[in-house]
Amino acid sequence: MTEINFTFSLEFTVRDYECDLQGVVNNANYQHYLEHARHEFLVSRGISFARLHEEGIDLIVSKVEIDYKFPLRSRDRFAVKLRVEREGNVRLLFIQEITRIPDEKLVARARVTGVATRKGKPVSPANIIEQLGLK
Amino acid sequence: MTEINFTFSLEFTVRDYECDLQGVVNNANYQHYLEHARHEFLVSRGISFARLHEEGIDLIVSKVEIDYKFPLRSRDRFAVKLRVEREGNVRLLFIQEITRIPDEKLVARARVTGVATRKGKPVSPANIIEQLGLK
Amino acid sequence: MTEINFTFSLEFTVRDYECDLQGVVNNANYQHYLEHARHEFLVSRGISFARLHEEGIDLIVSKVEIDYKFPLRSRDRFAVKLRVEREGNVRLLFIQEITRIPDEKLVARARVTGVATRKGKPVSPANIIEQLGLK
Amino acid sequence: MTEINFTFSLEFTVRDYECDLQGVVNNANYQHYLEHARHEFLVSRGISFARLHEEGIDLIVSKVEIDYKFPLRSRDRFAVKLRVEREGNVRLLFIQEITRIPDEKLVARARVTGVATRKGKPVSPANIIEQLGLK
Repeated sequence: MTEINFTFSLEFTVRDYECDLQGVVNNANYQHYLEHARHEFLVSRGISFARLHEEGIDLIVSKVEIDYKFPLRSRDRFAVKLRVEREGNVRLLFIQEITRIPDEKLVARARVTGVATRKGKPVSPANIIEQLGLK
Repeated sequence: MTEINFTFSLEFTVRDYECDLQGVVNNANYQHYLEHARHEFLVSRGISFARLHEEGIDLIVSKVEIDYKFPLRSRDRFAVKLRVEREGNVRLLFIQEITRIPDEKLVARARVTGVATRKGKPVSPANIIEQLGLK
Repeated sequence: MTEINFTFSLEFTVRDYECDLQGVVNNANYQHYLEHARHEFLVSRGISFARLHEEGIDLIVSKVEIDYKFPLRSRDRFAVKLRVEREGNVRLLFIQEITRIPDEKLVARARVTGVATRKGKPVSPANIIEQLGLK
Repeated sequence: MTEINFTFSLEFTVRDYECDLQGVVNNANYQHYLEHARHEFLVSRGISFARLHEEGIDLIVSKVEIDYKFPLRSRDRFAVKLRVEREGNVRLLFIQEITRIPDEKLVARARVTGVATRKGKPVSPANIIEQLGLK
């Protein structure tokens, strides 16, 4: 398997309330972790959801694929890594990985497709692509 | 103990993702149940958060007190009951109770204080009080 | 597109706390809805997570794919439909759809792969397959 | 007002998914923040929920009182501070405060009562009290 060249990484610790009856992090919470890492990444590149929203642009997720490899448990530390690619003219593809710290055990792999919309219609995210250096 | 005269009741079923490591509903989720019952109650009385927000009025919670009496478990059915009272000129007090169905076992008691605000400042919720028949 | 023959459907109403800053249901919450519908379906077929767990069997999700088509908003009513298929010897594939009520607007499509495990290792879910009539 | 002498503090950042329709952190999420700070505090004093559970002891919350003073918004940094006191023979009282960083704006005050239980019955948390230096 080819190594993916991630460009951003964020560290977390599992909080007890994120675990469910089975003693592991509930599946939906991984989506929270993935989202938080994407938002922090965009902010780190100067992309503000609030400012985009004022300009009438909303960034939304159109597709999520997650492979769950190994469950996180209470108090585990982990990293959410990502890289972003263009997909056609209107989509951004986020390739994300969650790994446990410090042993780098693979926890989950995800592919998340984002679309820029204006009044619910897809628009070219040209400025965003430029700010992300994807030209 | 005096019986409380509740004026609204809403039924729920515990969903597995609402339970935590200890096999019971996580404490914070009771606040979700209480909130959802309050919102459904207000809507049933013709009070719309969206319309109030457009008029510049936000209803916010200023205080929550919850006594946890007995934990809910996966798939338990339960009712959230409430009555509302005026507290001075600007506050509404929601008295709420959660009971398991069908045995009426007391799960939690709550007192939730709400305030109407305009631009972050408390205002008299006169229209709301009228719609709720609290005059 | 071929019509899918769903065998189970569960109705929900969006609760305000499930919506986020953008005024729509947060993406992760759709996974909660999908999970709750799967669990209710399994229970309706006599399959108890608790009993399986006592027998040393855990049903876990190994893969989730969700296509988000149209966002749900505060107080929307919706249905989560599903059908289940065998995928090889150890996997169950849940095909799920979320549609708004009453206009049947498509909200999301999902494919969720489940695996039965004993001590973290995949095992044949033979009994489950039989109970689900998938033989 | 007397200054409270807090003995533990934990820093957080608001994640977007924790905010709701009104653009502020949903009330129930403050309870998550408060809980996470308490658990991290107990762990920092060598008290493990898992080990207690194996010994048949569960620490549960019997009462929560929260005064909401000022709402947190997307990406705000904040601290959750606490101190713990004995309350009679079987209760622990956690006095907690949430303040925004860096301006120390008061966000919320909370009093959370915890009880040690064995098979659902309150027991003296003697060992815990000793470990917390509350003798």
